[in-house]
Amino acid sequence: MTARLKHFGWGREGEGLDADEREFLLARIRERFSVDRFDEKHPPLLAELKLAAPRLQPPAVLAPLCSSALYDRAAHAYGKSYPDAVHGLLGDYAAAPDVVAYPKSEADVAALLDWAGGADAAVVPFGAGSSVVGGIEPRGAAERKRGVVTIDLGQMGRVLEVDRAARAARIEAGAFGPALEAQLKPHGLTLRHFPQSFEYSTLGGWIATRSGGHFASLYTHIDDFVESVRMVTPKGALETRRLPGSGAGPAPERLVIGSEGILGIITEAWMRLQDRPRFRAGSSVAFADLFAAMRALRLVAQSGLFPANCRVLDSDEAYNTGAGDGRSAIMVLAFESGDHPVDGAMKRALDICASEGGKAEAPEAADAHLAGAAGRWRNAFIRMPYAREITVGLAIINDTFETAITWDRFERFHDSVKSAALEAIRRATGRTGQVTCRITHVYPDGPAPYFTFHGLGRHGELLAQWHEVKKSASDALIAAGGTITHHHAVGRQHRPWYDRERPDLFAATLRAAKRALDPQGLLNPGVLIDP
Amino acid sequence: MTARLKHFGWGREGEGLDADEREFLLARIRERFSVDRFDEKHPPLLAELKLAAPRLQPPAVLAPLCSSALYDRAAHAYGKSYPDAVHGLLGDYAAAPDVVAYPKSEADVAALLDWAGGADAAVVPFGAGSSVVGGIEPRGAAERKRGVVTIDLGQMGRVLEVDRAARAARIEAGAFGPALEAQLKPHGLTLRHFPQSFEYSTLGGWIATRSGGHFASLYTHIDDFVESVRMVTPKGALETRRLPGSGAGPAPERLVIGSEGILGIITEAWMRLQDRPRFRAGSSVAFADLFAAMRALRLVAQSGLFPANCRVLDSDEAYNTGAGDGRSAIMVLAFESGDHPVDGAMKRALDICASEGGKAEAPEAADAHLAGAAGRWRNAFIRMPYAREITVGLAIINDTFETAITWDRFERFHDSVKSAALEAIRRATGRTGQVTCRITHVYPDGPAPYFTFHGLGRHGELLAQWHEVKKSASDALIAAGGTITHHHAVGRQHRPWYDRERPDLFAATLRAAKRALDPQGLLNPGVLIDP
Repeated sequence: MTARLKHFGWGREGEGLDADEREFLLARIRERFSVDRFDEKHPPLLAELKLAAPRLQPPAVLAPLCSSALYDRAAHAYGKSYPDAVHGLLGDYAAAPDVVAYPKSEADVAALLDWAGGADAAVVPFGAGSSVVGGIEPRGAAERKRGVVTIDLGQMGRVLEVDRAARAARIEAGAFGPALEAQLKPHGLTLRHFPQSFEYSTLGGWIATRSGGHFASLYTHIDDFVESVRMVTPKGALETRRLPGSGAGPAPERLVIGSEGILGIITEAWMRLQDRPRFRAGSSVAFADLFAAMRALRLVAQSGLFPANCRVLDSDEAYNTGAGDGRSAIMVLAFESGDHPVDGAMKRALDICASEGGKAEAPEAADAHLAGAAGRWRNAFIRMPYAREITVGLAIINDTFETAITWDRFERFHDSVKSAALEAIRRATGRTGQVTCRITHVYPDGPAPYFTFHGLGRHGELLAQWHEVKKSASDALIAAGGTITHHHAVGRQHRPWYDRERPDLFAATLRAAKRALDPQGLLNPGVLIDP
Repeated sequence: MTARLKHFGWGREGEGLDADEREFLLARIRERFSVDRFDEKHPPLLAELKLAAPRLQPPAVLAPLCSSALYDRAAHAYGKSYPDAVHGLLGDYAAAPDVVAYPKSEADVAALLDWAGGADAAVVPFGAGSSVVGGIEPRGAAERKRGVVTIDLGQMGRVLEVDRAARAARIEAGAFGPALEAQLKPHGLTLRHFPQSFEYSTLGGWIATRSGGHFASLYTHIDDFVESVRMVTPKGALETRRLPGSGAGPAPERLVIGSEGILGIITEAWMRLQDRPRFRAGSSVAFADLFAAMRALRLVAQSGLFPANCRVLDSDEAYNTGAGDGRSAIMVLAFESGDHPVDGAMKRALDICASEGGKAEAPEAADAHLAGAAGRWRNAFIRMPYAREITVGLAIINDTFETAITWDRFERFHDSVKSAALEAIRRATGRTGQVTCRITHVYPDGPAPYFTFHGLGRHGELLAQWHEVKKSASDALIAAGGTITHHHAVGRQHRPWYDRERPDLFAATLRAAKRALDPQGLLNPGVLIDP
């Protein structure tokens, strides 16, 4: 039996960084801030938490699906954003739902929505709780006036049908990444959608938030893998037709993809799958600096080679993750195919990199994606989310934000966003911080830059200090033409900037769509729009 | 100075099939129906048409943009569908708009919408008039009660900005295909979106109808090339942000793409472009029959090779177009790249074809896309639209319909749709007809089949006979799980089947969106939804 998810921190109870990983992390932090002691605080234990009495009680027929136990309410109060971690550290669980429901079927979901409608309770759809944007946090005036039911889809994780000819499967929305892949493996198929949260996120969550996955080019978002989708709304079920392509009006699935739980609860989807890769080539390429790497990246992205991985780390990011020595920007490059050798594509990509001054490390190693700089970065990438439950207690402010921008604007964009964040860290904390950049996904017309920032804050001021940095960076990012999120979603935390980015008339249509499907405004209030 | 567009038939005045092409066409028809004489009727001349007096008069300030002249009204009454041709043959121009307006700027478009709103006139957005689904035909109860203004974007065809780094351009929606490419060529860039209607369709029309283009795989629809789009609605302008990718809520551009003029008038878009191809490989491959070709096509589509062209013609279609001798199904296969040689990809695709019994013609010819079976088919494809102005006068009923279906269902789908159409032709005309199939676009999870049907009808009954076939084929297609259109759009003619295909709750959101943007219901009434 797998351990249950932690109510605070990443992953399951008992998991975390090992001693070596912790020491590597702390060494980097000591060096970054030139300190050797920290003001360390610890979060309260679960048993020490005090939650307000639940304001809702499910009807007898739904009671077996529901819990108001302390663990369930605490473990569903927050996602995995920085403010969430601070709330957890402080033992502030004011956002906890009144009831957590675990439906086993779509009929259960519909019955729960009916009950919530009758009780005028807010409903928060919940996958695995790894939102980093306040997407599942029932906090805010609208919800606080009434009860909150969080509907956790975790019991609905089956692969229901596999179509080998079309390479597609019908999958329940509550499937976690590993369980989904394990069920596809006997069929020789794979979704190959590996967001950083892969182990602690679900298919429904990926679709609702337009998750970004494994593939750095071509199939960047989950969007492209959705063949059809089914969503239960307060007005009934909406199911799109299973089609490889269509031109019949505005694409109905595109209203569901990215709807972040405000229109309904995604219950299942037919997903496009891949053959398991049989051919691979991987390498990493060092460049003098980020901008040199980006010139090569642009050419690779516009070549039509479609590398599976094609991520650029600036020199600081390469150093922090152990992928480089801090003197070069690194491009991690990989091709894969279930059909044909990819050495020719790799050779051409490396030629392009060489033309911009890139020096390849180990271009011939077939397992380069598991070794060398690429492998070190990959390992750090997977283990990174476990760090915050340690660092927040040390009053470290660290967070990431990600965006996309067209090529012509990239350099100025990068510099203005980075300096806005750096200045804000200094202003907020009185001390120099660090802002690093990597590129997670890339398109022929532009990259998706992903920034990480580090500051040394003060306990008691962490939320305000974080907000100062978040606000300054986001303001700069929107002013310079970016999107407030390439794949983390909007949730509640990105609302001020999403509201500036999104066309007002599109917001009017989204509000109209919500009124049509959720006239009581039950679902995920405060996310994306105000009703 | 280019000639003006015909009011009846395809293309510009003075264009049409030459004597050889006409003879090839007639020989095929005589053979198909075992007849040597036809009951030939001719459409009335423009000067012979009688139109009702216009019910609208533009205000003085807009009068210079507007015309109610006979030519303008007649040339904007219909698209290029089969029923449109019959109406033209009969001289029935009841659908003619009252006023045709030719805005020169977005401000003109907004002013025209304001005037229409005040006059409560229906507004039909018009690109180049090649809709084959009744998308631009202001016919129907709602429009007949009031005046109709057709807004022809043809004066707004400029490429306004080119961004060489991001390979993107801002282009006015009224740009015709050839003029658009001509303006991009000096920059070494190309949109490479070549629908069959390329010469007589516009960027705005492509976006509004989710047009299908040149690329048989990967970039099948115009959708993927839209970086951002601007649309003028009765409530103001909606413009999406220029981004290579985003995950911020449901994609706003996807509401505009495929909206078929019911939400607003697309005025311009930033489009993703390509480098001009420098490397090509082309071939055609013969298979024992359609299903053998389809087995190979599935493997090619799932290989990740992404051929630029990968179209399958069944044996009858190959014969009719001169691409084959009628004994084999033909796959037309081509790769192209602006960056790297494509011979390796072609070799792998041909190996896959050989594994399913395919025999390649001229696999080594670099110009195979212009020669051999592929070239003959390509030429027939481009000239085909000119045939109908001849054949409709001979009481030939010929039309096409297109769809998409997942691989597992293809064979049964094909057989049930084809036999429904064949039976309906016999029932409607009392004589055996022909139904052929080709595959125009292909996805890893399924093909987009395109059917052509031929029957010999009787003057005076052509519309009813056509409708019998269209209805039977469409009923079968929807019952077997297909989409009513992969890239021709919905318009007014596909409404009954679109209404069955589209989720009801999605229709509710689309109606809600329309009420938010076009509360008077001015725009393109009868298309996609009833308000």
